[in-house]
Amino acid sequence: VQGGGSRPGGGSWLLAAGPSAPRPSGASGGAARGTRGRPEREVSDGRDVLTLDTMNPCVRRVEYAVRGPIVLRALELEQELRQGVKKPFTEVIRANIGDAQAMGQKPITFLRQVLALCVHPDLLNSPDFPEDAKRKAERILQACGGHSLGAYSVSSGIQLIREDVASYIERRDGGIPADPNNIYLSTGASDAILTVLKLLVAGEGPTRTGVLIPIPQYPLYSAALAELNAVQVDYYLDEERAWALDVAELRRALCQARDHCCPRALCIINPGNPTGQVQARECIEAVIRFAFEERLFLMADEVYQDNVYAEGSQFHSFKKVLTEMGPPYATQQELASFHSVSKGYMGECGFRGGYVEVVNLDAAVQQQMQKLLSVRLCPPVPGQVLLSMVVSPPAPSDPSFAQFQAERQAVLAELAAKAKLTEQVFNEAPGIRCNPVQGAMYSFPRVQLPPRAVQRAQELGLAPDMFFCMRLLEETGICVVPGSGFGQREGTYHFRMTILPPMEKLRPLLEKLSQFHAKFTREYS
Amino acid sequence: VQGGGSRPGGGSWLLAAGPSAPRPSGASGGAARGTRGRPEREVSDGRDVLTLDTMNPCVRRVEYAVRGPIVLRALELEQELRQGVKKPFTEVIRANIGDAQAMGQKPITFLRQVLALCVHPDLLNSPDFPEDAKRKAERILQACGGHSLGAYSVSSGIQLIREDVASYIERRDGGIPADPNNIYLSTGASDAILTVLKLLVAGEGPTRTGVLIPIPQYPLYSAALAELNAVQVDYYLDEERAWALDVAELRRALCQARDHCCPRALCIINPGNPTGQVQARECIEAVIRFAFEERLFLMADEVYQDNVYAEGSQFHSFKKVLTEMGPPYATQQELASFHSVSKGYMGECGFRGGYVEVVNLDAAVQQQMQKLLSVRLCPPVPGQVLLSMVVSPPAPSDPSFAQFQAERQAVLAELAAKAKLTEQVFNEAPGIRCNPVQGAMYSFPRVQLPPRAVQRAQELGLAPDMFFCMRLLEETGICVVPGSGFGQREGTYHFRMTILPPMEKLRPLLEKLSQFHAKFTREYS
Repeated sequence: VQGGGSRPGGGSWLLAAGPSAPRPSGASGGAARGTRGRPEREVSDGRDVLTLDTMNPCVRRVEYAVRGPIVLRALELEQELRQGVKKPFTEVIRANIGDAQAMGQKPITFLRQVLALCVHPDLLNSPDFPEDAKRKAERILQACGGHSLGAYSVSSGIQLIREDVASYIERRDGGIPADPNNIYLSTGASDAILTVLKLLVAGEGPTRTGVLIPIPQYPLYSAALAELNAVQVDYYLDEERAWALDVAELRRALCQARDHCCPRALCIINPGNPTGQVQARECIEAVIRFAFEERLFLMADEVYQDNVYAEGSQFHSFKKVLTEMGPPYATQQELASFHSVSKGYMGECGFRGGYVEVVNLDAAVQQQMQKLLSVRLCPPVPGQVLLSMVVSPPAPSDPSFAQFQAERQAVLAELAAKAKLTEQVFNEAPGIRCNPVQGAMYSFPRVQLPPRAVQRAQELGLAPDMFFCMRLLEETGICVVPGSGFGQREGTYHFRMTILPPMEKLRPLLEKLSQFHAKFTREYS
Repeated sequence: VQGGGSRPGGGSWLLAAGPSAPRPSGASGGAARGTRGRPEREVSDGRDVLTLDTMNPCVRRVEYAVRGPIVLRALELEQELRQGVKKPFTEVIRANIGDAQAMGQKPITFLRQVLALCVHPDLLNSPDFPEDAKRKAERILQACGGHSLGAYSVSSGIQLIREDVASYIERRDGGIPADPNNIYLSTGASDAILTVLKLLVAGEGPTRTGVLIPIPQYPLYSAALAELNAVQVDYYLDEERAWALDVAELRRALCQARDHCCPRALCIINPGNPTGQVQARECIEAVIRFAFEERLFLMADEVYQDNVYAEGSQFHSFKKVLTEMGPPYATQQELASFHSVSKGYMGECGFRGGYVEVVNLDAAVQQQMQKLLSVRLCPPVPGQVLLSMVVSPPAPSDPSFAQFQAERQAVLAELAAKAKLTEQVFNEAPGIRCNPVQGAMYSFPRVQLPPRAVQRAQELGLAPDMFFCMRLLEETGICVVPGSGFGQREGTYHFRMTILPPMEKLRPLLEKLSQFHAKFTREYS
């Protein structure tokens, strides 16, 4: 299966809709949003250099449901509410994206103190900041050009922070060494994932690079592969076994793909997005053996490594497992592991900080990567600073330790409670089934949709779960993303909902959603 | 001429050198930098999935001299100095990149005050911040998800800030309307330029998209075109007439290019980088007429719009000129104009803020652009905040106005003095000729190199001006970028040097450089 557009359910409508594509009632304004300022140009005058027909066809094929038409419609509804338009709800709840602070989570004080000191060093004289925050800030400013965040950093990121990241990885992985020279800071994890994919893409026709990605997936992967004109190779996670990853399924996907492309990389998302599973160590070992035997470059998306809730679940990094497996895996298997400041307990999405660690990468390729990064000059320095805090937080002897630890634990404990609650409420609802949310910050429940609803959706040119989610949004203000935006087995329907709304909102939200599903089911029965 | 690698002077060596390529003495460490941590993998073991031979060939062709081997060598020299190694100089001066704060320029106080307040809103209670800074910060926080910079913004940037940008453009352009919906905030200007180029790229073989870029150019353009597998079409600026842009030369370049590609876009850098010229209004009109007649999408890189120094020079935006030309130009000519917080008087490079305004873009293409941006989630929010300050600075009635204005003027006045000094000192040196630095922040002087030096460089497999610059760095600590990294007429040699070092360092630097050139000339005569 190639590109994001070929999965069942009309996903290609979702974002690539031209002016003549069918639209759900009420959503047309969203799709036409970019044109409001100049309606006179709604229709091309036939002179334009750049039109749908002449533009980059790979970009046309890109889809990204997490910010698709359902979100544009949610923005419109918010505006209508502000303008006093009557709706069956008083508030839009955006449970479509893993954006903790937008949902009311407070920033971790220590992180922001250090960043404020770095931004405005006059504050280093203020008595209102703890000594350890000042020490951290001074240490970072010393490492910046002109002692200012306003200078470019080197393209791979500030050396001191790359060293901090290396120390963090070593602690995380029980002492296995990490080399700062193999760590590249990035503009969020997405940027680093795109960079590594960009290196991997080559060939034409049957030699075109294929990349194995999980289904359901985080649609950055399908979008990036479409943009880069690489072949998306789907392997399915096993919903019946809590979204487990089977090597037999990997092998099936790989064998079929070899007919029409050259599979060269395998992407893993652990903990899973949107599926919330946490991989067992044995599973990771099996995946590594498979990648080694089949000569696949491993890409481990580990941005939810701090978000593990389920009892008995534990995060194991691919780097650690690979190293502990010894040669030839430890010495030869190529791996890129991604992390971010957007998730975890800190949720600092807006700052766009992240990193990639490369393992066993060919030295000449690594020079090429360095060169490619240099064209973008540098990742945003404030994001680098926050990353530095995340990987080297206050130590027990530091004045900020107690507060930092309390804030961190409160966030993680609440997330764990919300993960549990979500699973529980959904599983009490007839026609909804939700796997345990072992980690990350989403539930991906399966919903039964009556055949008449499926038929109605098809008449509207909509994926059935898109139809369900759009109706849900219009009637309840709850914004979730249809499963068709992530991929799912044909004939099954899901949605992704974050577990991030505050506890006092989450329970009513879950109940409202379950009730809407019941009503929707009755309506189309 | 296609790709960055085909210009004379061995430019392709500069960055794409494999382990066996020749290297200047002393620079080998720099080239091998990425491998230090794991020398055991210097040579691929033959099992790697990703090697120079199998990687993306477009990425291999990318070059970016501004951060090339000369800069890696400069970093090494700095480290050697710190370790006490004796050198003929005590300090490396990085005049290779337009990074004002790295050169000691202080941030504008008001910008940092507002950003610190946004980062750490507890400070809103502090008496140490002026009221207008607090008002600005509160206004921005209101517009952020969860009232926090840590939330994602919408992908096109915070709506309020897009409105601020639109007001700024309207003021700049004498009241010509700007629509916030046509403005997209970005991760520095580079990011936005890449996005627009990405939309434009299509076709294969003789229908492949060609993009006209000036020579000398800022190498982001050649790098992006190589990465996107588009055809670079060079048009030459006229050095004899202060780097003027001639439509006759545009026409020559276009006609020749039509033999082998489909030219669809024309890039203009005004004020010029690396060449420092400021385009006259008549010239801009002529370029717009040319683009319209030849059906070329216009890309106006206007990041130095605040950096105009020469008497009689004035910045005219392409948007303004195009609009004032009336129909059909005003209503049909497609344009993208780029700006940034990295340059100007603020020099906030590390924050990666910028924007693009699109004009007369096809509505459906604009939807596609919106979709493409959504995959990257959002530009870094701190950079958006700084952009907001830059486009809506304190008003005369605000408490911060006097200080803001004084700081801003001081920076711009010193830059103007440095531009003049640079031109003057270089033109006093035999064998160096420097056009007036009318704007931007670089000089791009032409240097005569003796035939024996050219021959010696060729023996070393180096571009002659790379050989000159590398020797300059090793002997004086002055880091500048060879003209071959920007493109130049065959047989001419240049270097790009920023005018950013502080005044007290700039004069000795210019004299040292001139003296080195004289010595180098004697040595090879």
